[in-house]
Amino acid sequence: MRDDLLRFALHLADLARPLARAHFRTPLAVETKADASPVTQADRGIEALLRAEIRRAYPDHGILGEEEGGDLGAARTWVIDPIDGTKSFVAGLPLFGTLIALAEHGRPVLGVIDMPILNERWHGAGGRAWLDGAPIRTGARPLSEARLFVNSPDRFRGAEAEAVARLSGEVGLRRYGGDCYAYALLASGHCDLVLGAGLAVYDVFALMPVIEGAGGLITDWQGRPITPDFDGRVVAAANPALHGAALERLAGEPMEPPLACFRSR
Amino acid sequence: MRDDLLRFALHLADLARPLARAHFRTPLAVETKADASPVTQADRGIEALLRAEIRRAYPDHGILGEEEGGDLGAARTWVIDPIDGTKSFVAGLPLFGTLIALAEHGRPVLGVIDMPILNERWHGAGGRAWLDGAPIRTGARPLSEARLFVNSPDRFRGAEAEAVARLSGEVGLRRYGGDCYAYALLASGHCDLVLGAGLAVYDVFALMPVIEGAGGLITDWQGRPITPDFDGRVVAAANPALHGAALERLAGEPMEPPLACFRSR
Repeated sequence: MRDDLLRFALHLADLARPLARAHFRTPLAVETKADASPVTQADRGIEALLRAEIRRAYPDHGILGEEEGGDLGAARTWVIDPIDGTKSFVAGLPLFGTLIALAEHGRPVLGVIDMPILNERWHGAGGRAWLDGAPIRTGARPLSEARLFVNSPDRFRGAEAEAVARLSGEVGLRRYGGDCYAYALLASGHCDLVLGAGLAVYDVFALMPVIEGAGGLITDWQGRPITPDFDGRVVAAANPALHGAALERLAGEPMEPPLACFRSR
Repeated sequence: MRDDLLRFALHLADLARPLARAHFRTPLAVETKADASPVTQADRGIEALLRAEIRRAYPDHGILGEEEGGDLGAARTWVIDPIDGTKSFVAGLPLFGTLIALAEHGRPVLGVIDMPILNERWHGAGGRAWLDGAPIRTGARPLSEARLFVNSPDRFRGAEAEAVARLSGEVGLRRYGGDCYAYALLASGHCDLVLGAGLAVYDVFALMPVIEGAGGLITDWQGRPITPDFDGRVVAAANPALHGAALERLAGEPMEPPLACFRSR
């Protein structure tokens, strides 16, 4: 990771934070977007500010943001969710975050999760991750003690809800909500599994370098890498053993043992 | 409210806060109680500290706490939940709070909601309420714009879940979780309705003077006052109109108009 790009990503978070703080718990008109999610002038204002700064500094980079759209076609693209957790933001709950990722040829190589009210900032790049500048590692709890965060249960229907219930039944503790903060807590070792659904590239790309840099895994529910056309479902795990166990429960039946198991006999 | 009792309640919160902070995000053994809820040495340590201080200062007062029990038989009883939101506490989420109430003859007359990590403290007494010493008022949004918080959906089954769905379908925004913090946000006007179930006296008594002191209402789902033998279900509302609308949706059919409506014709 080029130093100037990492510094610039943190600079973007520095720019966004005071604007988010200034709007928090103030009267804001809440509009409902076509996908039924809420948006405020804070979401729009932060994204506009970050877009202007990116265009000024790196005019040849692409931009993909939640509010104004965009694509990942450029060699380098900044992927922005100005306020991840707008419902929390609107309800005065300080769990919302600003997500900033840099994608190279469609893959995130740098991610920032900034919590404007909680004064915490995670970032990941080059296979390492930090909270407020201190290196972090994911946890090592077994499934029976694992702490699971689940997106709003409203996101899961039918077979999805059954899969969530199967996994929930075997963990030590389950909480709902948290948006990006749940993934950040996983990177720091405080929780161990996070299930998401209905997510978009701008919800997920910034999380990936943080989780992977801290030693965790984040894939879709089949264990495949998150690509720009992923199906919106995400499972993050603190370590490979938990990841495998979670995929098994989500699939509903034990996965075939890998061939290596037989070869070793 | 006698000044010394109010000062003492705030002093108890001052004592609890550093202990909660010292244990947060440290390795803690998590035990599961008979009711399947988690408990840690932090919950037990804070309650023991507060009990000792109450016995020292007011040896004739009763004490009812989540971890060591007790009853409301004394003329004055301190009602304590050392960590409301132990699941959040265990998972590194700063939404847990310490709840302290003073009950006189079984009714809460003073309540403190202290958020040790968020550095916020609500208190209510004598028909008024404050956040960090500044007076607060509940909001005035109509039902269609109301922000609803719901306890973990796992608490609601069958007809209860249907009632929650009916109400949720008519509000502007719904979030899950939050424990005591949701009620505190309601007192400050950031959210407007909170639904709880499976709650105990120590979960609720501290909330009541805060919500009522800020202009809100908190009753059971039939609109009856919360008494020591309430059924664990709570609806808190920012104002009487929202409270009536919520009770109607929870009941599943429009309530009879009060007699006054007919008399006025």
